[in-house]
Amino acid sequence: MGIKGNAIVAQSGGMTAAINATLAGVYEKAAASTEIGKIFGALHGIEGIINNNLIEMSLTDEEVGRLKVTPGGYLGSCRYKIPSPENGKDVYDKILNTLKDNDIRYFFYIGGNDSMDTANKISNYLREHGHEILAVGLPKTIDNDLPITDHTPGFGSAAKYIAATCSEIYLDVKSFDIPYVTIVEVMGRNAGWLTAAAALVKERYDSPDLIYLPEVPFELEQFFVDLAKVRENKPAAIVVISEGIKTPEGRYFAELGGDLSADNFGHKNLGGSAALLAAHVKKRLDCKVRAIEFSLLQRCAGHIVSATDINESFAIGGAGVEAALSGKSGIMMTYVCEREPVYSMKIGSCALSDVANVERKIPREWINEAGNFPTKECNDYIRPLIQGEIHPATENGIPNYLYRSK
Amino acid sequence: MGIKGNAIVAQSGGMTAAINATLAGVYEKAAASTEIGKIFGALHGIEGIINNNLIEMSLTDEEVGRLKVTPGGYLGSCRYKIPSPENGKDVYDKILNTLKDNDIRYFFYIGGNDSMDTANKISNYLREHGHEILAVGLPKTIDNDLPITDHTPGFGSAAKYIAATCSEIYLDVKSFDIPYVTIVEVMGRNAGWLTAAAALVKERYDSPDLIYLPEVPFELEQFFVDLAKVRENKPAAIVVISEGIKTPEGRYFAELGGDLSADNFGHKNLGGSAALLAAHVKKRLDCKVRAIEFSLLQRCAGHIVSATDINESFAIGGAGVEAALSGKSGIMMTYVCEREPVYSMKIGSCALSDVANVERKIPREWINEAGNFPTKECNDYIRPLIQGEIHPATENGIPNYLYRSK
Repeated sequence: MGIKGNAIVAQSGGMTAAINATLAGVYEKAAASTEIGKIFGALHGIEGIINNNLIEMSLTDEEVGRLKVTPGGYLGSCRYKIPSPENGKDVYDKILNTLKDNDIRYFFYIGGNDSMDTANKISNYLREHGHEILAVGLPKTIDNDLPITDHTPGFGSAAKYIAATCSEIYLDVKSFDIPYVTIVEVMGRNAGWLTAAAALVKERYDSPDLIYLPEVPFELEQFFVDLAKVRENKPAAIVVISEGIKTPEGRYFAELGGDLSADNFGHKNLGGSAALLAAHVKKRLDCKVRAIEFSLLQRCAGHIVSATDINESFAIGGAGVEAALSGKSGIMMTYVCEREPVYSMKIGSCALSDVANVERKIPREWINEAGNFPTKECNDYIRPLIQGEIHPATENGIPNYLYRSK
Repeated sequence: MGIKGNAIVAQSGGMTAAINATLAGVYEKAAASTEIGKIFGALHGIEGIINNNLIEMSLTDEEVGRLKVTPGGYLGSCRYKIPSPENGKDVYDKILNTLKDNDIRYFFYIGGNDSMDTANKISNYLREHGHEILAVGLPKTIDNDLPITDHTPGFGSAAKYIAATCSEIYLDVKSFDIPYVTIVEVMGRNAGWLTAAAALVKERYDSPDLIYLPEVPFELEQFFVDLAKVRENKPAAIVVISEGIKTPEGRYFAELGGDLSADNFGHKNLGGSAALLAAHVKKRLDCKVRAIEFSLLQRCAGHIVSATDINESFAIGGAGVEAALSGKSGIMMTYVCEREPVYSMKIGSCALSDVANVERKIPREWINEAGNFPTKECNDYIRPLIQGEIHPATENGIPNYLYRSK
């Protein structure tokens, strides 16, 4: 069997510490294939394809190894939302041209559910316009909110970061025997999976005390009742919240800053949910208060990744190439997992169209009745995904990541 | 030689990722000594001695190993400022009683320059009141602002965290090809050593772009000039600032929040220097802006410590015990280092009284003329201190730190 065409791979949406592991998996398998010629990387996601801004990828084994544990998007990312073919024929024609001009027959798109929708629209359009390609979607998101797949590549590493860092914050905070409330903010606007990972800390340390998720309405008065109960028994309380906690009316709590007191909390952009909640606590209670926002750190901390996550993310990239080589298209690769008697993962697939615009949240029964802590079922689900360590090589004390310099 | 008395050890001030390494070093050496009987730990620093709140320490070798890489204060800390003996005779008498009642003849105090002052006052008072003790101070602080010692235990690990994390933020941010300003805030109210560690990133990556330190007055208009220059060449700029950057008038920049515009930045407690600077940028420039505050993470990240720092911090603890056993007292142990032809460290000492209330800052000539980046001399000083990795053992994917449960 000779070369059937070239391949293109792109990365999209928010970054993770494992998105390059999937890229490395795609590259390794595609480079080994006798049916795939050149491997192009589209710079900055679909925008690179639209603008014919490609690089030809050529990596040594050593570089593939470094890429596997490099955070951020090696090829760059974008937040571009593709129009429908009816409204954006020029965009689709540019894509068609790029793929035709470069004889591209394999398209691998690493992204979230928007990206799966994009990949689907593109492969349909191209088929209708006489350029058949094999399009395979590869999931990624720290939010773990994609349907069908057991979990998403990138989630386990971010969850491990949350669990390790919350352990460390606890050890720092408990050093001081003073009235102290620490509020930690974790990413997740609508799904609380990542925030829920903090519950794993409690299997080892007496912390955190309260965890609030976007899946359960957040009531400020009830929060103060919950907090008072915690503070009966210990001076220092640690509360972990999702950035996306919402009021019973469905508004983001972080958006309420301006409502509080004009002279006190004028500009909501100065902080997120944790900063605002900390300001409430400071106003009401006589104690030290600190807000900590993990911000980008939780999604780019390549120095503390989950080996399970990195290895699975690499494997799903390779499996995507194998699926395309066997003629499959219009699919997203998925994880199919068992947790009993021990955790195991094999790779499956689903239709791209089944993923687009579906958001998976934590089931209500995986959160306690009071709505302020995940249950053991939730822990049992997340625990296997943070197992194992891979440490990036360092040079002069700093991680030696692989990146494209301009 | 038989037992001469018991020993006490305490930890004080802000936590570091290496303060327990020093404790482990003290414990190991004291436990091996035939002259030291029991080893007491004072809970929550000097407060534990005042209130006779002690534990008798007894650790296995395995526990000493885990303690070495555990962040936070195993014995707890305090921020208590001891009065002068004239104003606080009752306090000193309580201390005298605790030490007498427990037959304590060796006192090891791990802390910053306030703690050295405390140790000095106590040992003088006790001598005058007929209870001779050997008092040895062991430095610690992530701020690296103690005089005489080449650097401080705990600084190297925090500096390594800064360098690694700033590398990772760069890789995340550069994934997006959009106008973007990221402002990172590092601890350090008056000394910029920790912030300066971000300059090491630039030896490997094209980042950060600008670094502002408390040693050079921060002028907002000049900052916008500097930033504009950076943005001529790249869409995404990364700026690292010390929490303690000050205006030319000597006021903390972070305190200016309320001055800006009442309806926009009412409550300065909602954020620190980075949040405030980000608000200024957002107001003036049409681009995405993000403020990231490392907060406690930079001083408690036991999962990314400097092996050099941990091993040196352990060694200085042991050396403190050896000094006391040889009859020395009223001293703080120091690092004496050479950097040419290769880095080497040996342990020395100085008088406790020479350390108290002296704050060491970055020399002006180690910062470029524009005042917006450290020089190579500064890098050469910091670089050896972040070398090497030690990873804490994990259990179920979470670091298996040693801590006292209540």
